[in-house]
Amino acid sequence: MTDITVLSRGLSVPKGFGDASLVAAPPGAIRLLGGIPAPEALPVEDFGRASAALWEDRPAAVAGLQYSQTPGFAALRSWIAAREGVDPRRIVITNGGMHGLSLAVLTVVERGATVAVDDPVFPLFLRALEVSTTATLPVPVVGDGFDVEYLAARLAAGERIAAAYTVPDFHNPSQVTLPADKRRALVELAERYGFYVIADNPYRELRFAGEDQGHAVFNDSDRAIHVNTFTKTLGPGWRLGWLVLPEHLVDPVVRLRNRGDSHSPTVTQTIVENLVTQDGWFDGVVKAANDLYRERAQVLVDALHEELPGAFGTQVPEGGLFLWPRLRDDSLDAAALYERAAAAGVVYQQGAHFAASPQQESARHLRFAFGDRTPDELREAARRLAQAFHGA
Amino acid sequence: MTDITVLSRGLSVPKGFGDASLVAAPPGAIRLLGGIPAPEALPVEDFGRASAALWEDRPAAVAGLQYSQTPGFAALRSWIAAREGVDPRRIVITNGGMHGLSLAVLTVVERGATVAVDDPVFPLFLRALEVSTTATLPVPVVGDGFDVEYLAARLAAGERIAAAYTVPDFHNPSQVTLPADKRRALVELAERYGFYVIADNPYRELRFAGEDQGHAVFNDSDRAIHVNTFTKTLGPGWRLGWLVLPEHLVDPVVRLRNRGDSHSPTVTQTIVENLVTQDGWFDGVVKAANDLYRERAQVLVDALHEELPGAFGTQVPEGGLFLWPRLRDDSLDAAALYERAAAAGVVYQQGAHFAASPQQESARHLRFAFGDRTPDELREAARRLAQAFHGA
Repeated sequence: MTDITVLSRGLSVPKGFGDASLVAAPPGAIRLLGGIPAPEALPVEDFGRASAALWEDRPAAVAGLQYSQTPGFAALRSWIAAREGVDPRRIVITNGGMHGLSLAVLTVVERGATVAVDDPVFPLFLRALEVSTTATLPVPVVGDGFDVEYLAARLAAGERIAAAYTVPDFHNPSQVTLPADKRRALVELAERYGFYVIADNPYRELRFAGEDQGHAVFNDSDRAIHVNTFTKTLGPGWRLGWLVLPEHLVDPVVRLRNRGDSHSPTVTQTIVENLVTQDGWFDGVVKAANDLYRERAQVLVDALHEELPGAFGTQVPEGGLFLWPRLRDDSLDAAALYERAAAAGVVYQQGAHFAASPQQESARHLRFAFGDRTPDELREAARRLAQAFHGA
Repeated sequence: MTDITVLSRGLSVPKGFGDASLVAAPPGAIRLLGGIPAPEALPVEDFGRASAALWEDRPAAVAGLQYSQTPGFAALRSWIAAREGVDPRRIVITNGGMHGLSLAVLTVVERGATVAVDDPVFPLFLRALEVSTTATLPVPVVGDGFDVEYLAARLAAGERIAAAYTVPDFHNPSQVTLPADKRRALVELAERYGFYVIADNPYRELRFAGEDQGHAVFNDSDRAIHVNTFTKTLGPGWRLGWLVLPEHLVDPVVRLRNRGDSHSPTVTQTIVENLVTQDGWFDGVVKAANDLYRERAQVLVDALHEELPGAFGTQVPEGGLFLWPRLRDDSLDAAALYERAAAAGVVYQQGAHFAASPQQESARHLRFAFGDRTPDELREAARRLAQAFHGA
């Protein structure tokens, strides 16, 4: 008998993170689980108007229901390319960020090759990586992100990698942003040693404080793949994102996509293209969302200080959807705390799920996703968390 | 430098078929190119109503824009499962038929393994297959489809395959249907020799004459993957299809999909689920479409007889979107005929593009896709084709 096989053989069974977001929390629990946009931030009325426009024009609707080009709709790619500052030919529309990561991995990671990854890491990237390899070089994510010097030292010592994966803006889970000079240094390493930087940037638009550290450094290098998505701004349900590819990777990625689902749905591309190409529309959506997230981040930080003074080391986020507080009491059992918190009616992601190595530091953190919770819910979440602490 | 790599390495550059459908035909040419539904058969008004319903209910719309489960929407899977006569757990929603083929190949075809394929074959399957292998065993498609006895003889002689690929209903390109007894025999071979049947069935609903040869034989076997799609009924632009999987392949396929684009868009699933779960809606759409296709098939056959008596061996289709006439004059240069036809204002797919082996038989055929052309266009196409013949 032929064994079942190939890419699907040996893929790990999902556990912990990545499924907790979909698992039923205790009834009434406040969920600080997923990096998903606030319901209030989704421009549903605009989606409705653009959808109606699509179906009202029958000849256009019919034409729009046929097959389309693999790289995606031209006007959508042009709009993205203008924002990215690149030629539209280098944009390939994907079915969201995970799909972009998957295409990137399948295009530049040889079977069994080693890939440097954030530690702590977005766990679903390790899953995406499994189709090519499970060999990783965990690189500590420090106070200002991916430790480029650590990687440089390992490379200088002879280690070789096919790619380096990091979330440069508002890191998942650790909320930090990679400074401009470290971005430059990372890309220079990639160019020197011949690996690819996979820059996973879903939170980039969600800056509500501080200074943009720039992304041209990724878009200008032949050794960087810049992965982005509409998931955190327009909603995961669209399953629409894009890759900014070096010129020489465009054809390989398109050929690979030709062997997959051919192209993203025309229905979703039509609606999103219609909206984003309206002058100022997308910036307006993002600004309204960031006003919400700025407030929510501050409310959560303040509530934790008030309800649990001294319990956490926290940093007010400059953007994104995550707070990554560190437990100050090293004797506290983080797993037991999680159980008590769930019983008290608040659920979050345990830091241990994000460790890319046996290091114990991640387990001392909690990941709170604040974006889709109201200020009142965030305050109540902090109160319930305090109950969990006091039950310790 | 790391080479670019892995799945995307060595993928062929698309040529001929599969791109001709998207290439600009000469201005004014009648296009008999693609297996796509008639514009008149697409229920655009219903799509508009279901879209409006989605966006009108804001809480539901917002919930529907979040992440969802990888196998697809529950009610959509249940509706499909009821039609297929299987447990809903065995249905995985895909982004259309090509995506289903791709997931099937990546799940059951070892790298470098041999796969038996229709000859002539749907060329995009060979492309999907390239991510795992280029080793094929071409199996002649004869008057009643895939030659199961030929395959049986090769297997008896010691040849081993990972899978056998065929289009059982209204074969692409050759329009024939595999009879019930040959389906049974093929599945029995798969069970005896331990390979998988990949039954690619996009045209199955489009029967307008003759007897259904049944699909339970595929759905009842642990050795068959049944690939289907809404592409030919509701339109390619939805990029929605499904796999009927043997129980033991459900988890491997879901794990693989987890590493790809996670799930099909909720927006498209919501709209299609809303419609197909309305009692009788889908059957009504299919019946109206088949009334069109029955007429168009007959018009084309009649017009060819009238304009070019004796030029072709033709068979009136019982369903699907293709006519696969054979040139009677073996001395006629089929490639030169195509050039003259294009110059006369009619384009089609040349049979040679579908050959899976060096056999010359396919090149003696033409593939006319009649589904999206009106009767008047089909009659005019036959007249232009007659000009091309007379210019020979």
